[in-house]
Amino acid sequence: MPAVNHKFELAARPVGLPKRSDWNFTQEPVRDPADGELLIKIIYISLDPAMRGWMNAGKSYVPPVGIGEVMRALALGRVLSSRNPKFSPGDHVYGLLGVQEYAISNGAGLTKVDPKAAPLPVYLGTLGMPGMTAYFGLLDVAQTKSSDTVVVSGAAGAVGAVAGQIAKIKGCRVIGIAGGLAKCQYIKDLGFDAAIDYKSEPVLRALATHCPNGIDVYFDNVGGDILDAALANLARGARIAICGAISQYNTTTGIKGPSNYLSLLVNRATMKGFVVFDFADRYLEAAREMGAWLASGKLKSREDIVEGFEKFPETLLMLYSGENTGKLILKVAES
Amino acid sequence: MPAVNHKFELAARPVGLPKRSDWNFTQEPVRDPADGELLIKIIYISLDPAMRGWMNAGKSYVPPVGIGEVMRALALGRVLSSRNPKFSPGDHVYGLLGVQEYAISNGAGLTKVDPKAAPLPVYLGTLGMPGMTAYFGLLDVAQTKSSDTVVVSGAAGAVGAVAGQIAKIKGCRVIGIAGGLAKCQYIKDLGFDAAIDYKSEPVLRALATHCPNGIDVYFDNVGGDILDAALANLARGARIAICGAISQYNTTTGIKGPSNYLSLLVNRATMKGFVVFDFADRYLEAAREMGAWLASGKLKSREDIVEGFEKFPETLLMLYSGENTGKLILKVAES
Repeated sequence: MPAVNHKFELAARPVGLPKRSDWNFTQEPVRDPADGELLIKIIYISLDPAMRGWMNAGKSYVPPVGIGEVMRALALGRVLSSRNPKFSPGDHVYGLLGVQEYAISNGAGLTKVDPKAAPLPVYLGTLGMPGMTAYFGLLDVAQTKSSDTVVVSGAAGAVGAVAGQIAKIKGCRVIGIAGGLAKCQYIKDLGFDAAIDYKSEPVLRALATHCPNGIDVYFDNVGGDILDAALANLARGARIAICGAISQYNTTTGIKGPSNYLSLLVNRATMKGFVVFDFADRYLEAAREMGAWLASGKLKSREDIVEGFEKFPETLLMLYSGENTGKLILKVAES
Repeated sequence: MPAVNHKFELAARPVGLPKRSDWNFTQEPVRDPADGELLIKIIYISLDPAMRGWMNAGKSYVPPVGIGEVMRALALGRVLSSRNPKFSPGDHVYGLLGVQEYAISNGAGLTKVDPKAAPLPVYLGTLGMPGMTAYFGLLDVAQTKSSDTVVVSGAAGAVGAVAGQIAKIKGCRVIGIAGGLAKCQYIKDLGFDAAIDYKSEPVLRALATHCPNGIDVYFDNVGGDILDAALANLARGARIAICGAISQYNTTTGIKGPSNYLSLLVNRATMKGFVVFDFADRYLEAAREMGAWLASGKLKSREDIVEGFEKFPETLLMLYSGENTGKLILKVAES
């Protein structure tokens, strides 16, 4: 039976929020791997805020997805057949496999995962890119230490929830900012000392209340007004890790820069951008430490799994409307 | 003869550019110093962009000048009489003596200067706060090294001209941004590799031309659109030292935040604010090194001296209209 590979190819560069018509839903027969290649059946596709940026033309930290190319995505699957000596049928792997049901790979950039050590979706979340982003952003970029008051925005998201929990593990006071009662309850259940619901209270004032001595570390996933509110509440010597700016990715009127940036001067503070790929040679170290925290229950992982390959466009939008809690994953096949 | 002290006291918190009516021009008899005090006749008053910020209410790195208080300013003068054992009549001193003709001080925060080692105005410029700001901002905050391409805004100003020259001394390629042909010629005469006239050419494109491999260090004195242009031209791992934002100090419509700040993320770059006072325990070290550069002719100092105490309000405005080249100083008495 010749299997069919369905895929989403980029059809147009979106203006504002991506629409279904910004992709072409196409299909092709699955081909056999050539020498050195392997064939992977994709099980889980990771949906990440950064994907919006990959759809734009222009220079960034990775090249844009080309028009007509399969939409770029991290995904996890099972090897069906392999002519690459490093991989065997039955292996589980993840990497930039794209928004499709099957992928042919030469093995470059693929990581093998052990389904017995953790549930497969965790490898796309806490033990994957979001977890690595939280770990290195918090500990390395922001140089967080136990005496710090740490504020995390997008705190109920895949990166934010892990960043806040790691800060708690390290002994910090941690305040999370999230949208809505349920998300705020979720992060309090995770052990955050306080949660600010940006949909129902002024963040500027709430930060002043919860951080009477100012913010030492601000881990920013959202940008926009919340970044300005954090800037207005910095402690002397504060460090801001710029992880993302989800509030700005779909703007059609231009990015809102942080008008309170002169707080950096007043408070001798640092704002630093980072890209997790730069820490690739230390992923294993981080995964070991986070794996141990997961095993001991100190760190909790949550995935928000939506089923159905064809639902990719609308599921991606959940990220930007704030509908997901935890790592958003599209399930496209049974494991 | 009972001398009279004229002074400018803050009368109102300015909206936009300060007006003469934002100060009261008052006078009082000069009193004798009490025990532990000294009386100083002020010769030169330093006019600095930061003075605009000191006139605003609200928390900053120093308390605001109170309504009715003498306007805060660095100034240099000669001791007339002293009941403080550390100072003698004839000593030259500088410190936060205020916008007035005579000052009574208890000696705290005063620095003695040697008029034989350098002309007095230089102690308010290259060997004073602006020079220290350039030195520590460039070398310490931005961690500039010889292989760096360095861009300095406000490059013909007191801080910028010194920052650019130090970068040249350290072996960097240095591009200055200044307003008008004369200032651009001035910084080229100082040894800058290139000058961009923001009044006559698009800075974004000019930076791309002059920094084909991107900007490694951006020393920012101006903020606004020029900061955005620099952000758009960063090299990987760039460092931005936020020294000031003179384009924004008199805004009545809100500070313009840098809308290109996500370039920090793309380029793994750092934006760091600083206040020179934090380096007070190393001023002497810096002054020695800069003094040697001045003596050898490697570093040139330029002061823009306006005479007449009563001209304080309109002279201060020269900073914000970009009329001065080099360190702006008000001369209020003969040395």
